[in-house]
Amino acid sequence: MGEFELLAKVRKRLPVPGPQVQLGSGDDAAITVPGGATAISVDALIDGVHFQRRWSSLTQIGGKALATALSDLAAMGAEPGEAYVVLGVPADLDEDGCLELLDGIMKVAKETGTTLAGGDVTRAPALTLAMTVVGHAPAPEELVTRAGARPGEVLVVTGELGGAAAGLLLLEQSPDCGVDPAIAGSTPQSGLDRGLLVRQLEPWPRLEAGRALAAAGATAMIDLSDGLGGDAGHLATASRVGLRIEAAALPLASGIVEIATAAGRDPLELATSGGEDYELLATLPRERFAAAAAAVKKQAGIGLTRIGEVLAGEGVEIRLPDGGLLAPTGFDQLG
Amino acid sequence: MGEFELLAKVRKRLPVPGPQVQLGSGDDAAITVPGGATAISVDALIDGVHFQRRWSSLTQIGGKALATALSDLAAMGAEPGEAYVVLGVPADLDEDGCLELLDGIMKVAKETGTTLAGGDVTRAPALTLAMTVVGHAPAPEELVTRAGARPGEVLVVTGELGGAAAGLLLLEQSPDCGVDPAIAGSTPQSGLDRGLLVRQLEPWPRLEAGRALAAAGATAMIDLSDGLGGDAGHLATASRVGLRIEAAALPLASGIVEIATAAGRDPLELATSGGEDYELLATLPRERFAAAAAAVKKQAGIGLTRIGEVLAGEGVEIRLPDGGLLAPTGFDQLG
Repeated sequence: MGEFELLAKVRKRLPVPGPQVQLGSGDDAAITVPGGATAISVDALIDGVHFQRRWSSLTQIGGKALATALSDLAAMGAEPGEAYVVLGVPADLDEDGCLELLDGIMKVAKETGTTLAGGDVTRAPALTLAMTVVGHAPAPEELVTRAGARPGEVLVVTGELGGAAAGLLLLEQSPDCGVDPAIAGSTPQSGLDRGLLVRQLEPWPRLEAGRALAAAGATAMIDLSDGLGGDAGHLATASRVGLRIEAAALPLASGIVEIATAAGRDPLELATSGGEDYELLATLPRERFAAAAAAVKKQAGIGLTRIGEVLAGEGVEIRLPDGGLLAPTGFDQLG
Repeated sequence: MGEFELLAKVRKRLPVPGPQVQLGSGDDAAITVPGGATAISVDALIDGVHFQRRWSSLTQIGGKALATALSDLAAMGAEPGEAYVVLGVPADLDEDGCLELLDGIMKVAKETGTTLAGGDVTRAPALTLAMTVVGHAPAPEELVTRAGARPGEVLVVTGELGGAAAGLLLLEQSPDCGVDPAIAGSTPQSGLDRGLLVRQLEPWPRLEAGRALAAAGATAMIDLSDGLGGDAGHLATASRVGLRIEAAALPLASGIVEIATAAGRDPLELATSGGEDYELLATLPRERFAAAAAAVKKQAGIGLTRIGEVLAGEGVEIRLPDGGLLAPTGFDQLG
């Protein structure tokens, strides 16, 4: 497979570029006319570090690469615009495999309204996908950074937590479970377990929720890629505030208590340290919470849960129902 | 070394962002307000594929990653704006090594007026640098694609050809030659050889020349990364024209005849198939050539050479002084 032949095939599969793209893939650079503020983020997935090919189909891997990159745009409240992919291809991946990866990227691009506007293909020792995503907003003030939280505000999270970590536990315990029939030897799952596997293998960016939160007056926002504790720490540091999280208020994903217990793990640990849920953590003035929750429900179809508050000081604490504190993992203790 | 600690150190070294950058590294995404057209390109360098650590210092590798990425912006005639880097770090590279890579990136960023506005650090089986570069122009019409060449125009190239390929020959023959004292055991070179090694190890994007050519009316442009023959083929295909190149007119880099001859290679082969010179190949209306050459000389300090012409048809031919044709390597024959 030559790089140029593959790129030519890839270009034939690309749909018509979005309105801001004047020139898509195939030249030295893509040309866009953003017409406002842009949010740009880069993110990489590498075989053995961020995914396992025995658990994920190539379509799932391509989709996950774009979805997790777009999650950073969701956390800014940006409208997704363009994506660019660097594909590092190992010796055991043929042209059909590359096109399957692309199909996964294209599926997520289509469903999110993202234009795949350029890329680069090279040999690599392990399958590597480096994604660059560009989001748009009419003006920079409409984008939400991590730095605007103020004491007295409430801390909220979208959707459910711990599902991706529980899905990973399932995969580690039962290597033959899967949700994509393209994975040879995998056993199709149903019900709760399937939902948790999907959270791990096919994460989805909370783009509509991010825009709803931005419009509803979110003062700071971050996506939960590393885990609630660590990502709350990033937000607290950037905003120079303290964050107190009530463990009892956390919206645990259905089924994770059973899976965690069976594995001898604490469900709270999955929800606070597991990461990869790609939900959004945000701060809001107290009086905006009801309207924000209604907007997230309406525009994204998911819940918004108040899980804590913003305090003076700097750091994070997670309070257990008995009044104790969860041992810190990956974040500074408040105080 | 934790990712977050490294990123924090990296951010401390970053200079103040450029005027279009509202928010640089450290949040979910960078925020920029482009105010016109943007040209975006992605490019990756991987250890063993695009560079050898035994020949290049980490500073050189970082610099090469940004320089070769910016070369794509040069080929559009764009003003360099922002860069984003995904760094894949193998087990044998420590934090100091990562900071050396960054120093190389920063050096090129500073000299070209590029703002390093974001990045991602991850483990990887081999050192990987995926760069995204964003360039700017007041309007999309001011950017030069590969697709505007018309029959009757002249074909021009900046600077000199074959230097990078000759530098590679030197390295392959004398693994101890080097130009960076940081490479242990390397022998410092002087004169011509040093110049050729620099072409290979420290390539430079022709940004000023690209803008001068765009302003002087270039109708199509591409940078020479794959080699003159192949890249001329890309331009010919995109413009749907034929390109006739006169081998006798090619501006060969000083010293390559001797090195090629000593290695039993044809200097013309180095100049047409070697690649990595990162010079610019462009087409111009015949009457614009003199002004374009003067502008490139004045703004970039390098020569502009007329090496052929644009014909009807599609493909590339390289005519030898005796009237014969150079055997095609990596491109379709004109006809």
